[in-house]
Amino acid sequence: MADDASVSNDVLNTSAQGKLKSLIERIERLEEDKAVVSNDLKEVYLETKGEGFDVKIVRKIVRLRKQDKAKRQEEEALIDLYLSAIGGL
Amino acid sequence: MADDASVSNDVLNTSAQGKLKSLIERIERLEEDKAVVSNDLKEVYLETKGEGFDVKIVRKIVRLRKQDKAKRQEEEALIDLYLSAIGGL
Repeated sequence: MADDASVSNDVLNTSAQGKLKSLIERIERLEEDKAVVSNDLKEVYLETKGEGFDVKIVRKIVRLRKQDKAKRQEEEALIDLYLSAIGGL
Repeated sequence: MADDASVSNDVLNTSAQGKLKSLIERIERLEEDKAVVSNDLKEVYLETKGEGFDVKIVRKIVRLRKQDKAKRQEEEALIDLYLSAIGGL
């Protein structure tokens, strides 16, 4: 794209500089949020282990529940689609 | 560990059931938070691209700034350590 963020002469104009700074700061804040959440997750898994549960099995259950939830949502979406196609119940 | 979360006879007691449920719900909430942050990050990178910036270079800058920040924090920690060792400035 050749809008004002493009470099025509090896210098970003003031508008592009501001945009770039803002984008990088947003990325950095989100990366920090992600690191916090990842660390919290690690701690809950440590706690899970500390309580005597098998972490591998707990991870598997979380995965199974996620798949099951996705499947149910997909089914509900299809039910809605088919029902709307026949004019409702 | 062989506390009340352990399975001695293939059945979790009520306390262990409650703990397990609570741990799994916390994990699921954190996984959802992580997915939201990851999606937000993806969108900021799409916006970055849409503004005409080279995403690969922006990623590299974010990484360099992170390394630089870590290095500066490490230096500051060492300065504090050495200063406290000699009784301050």
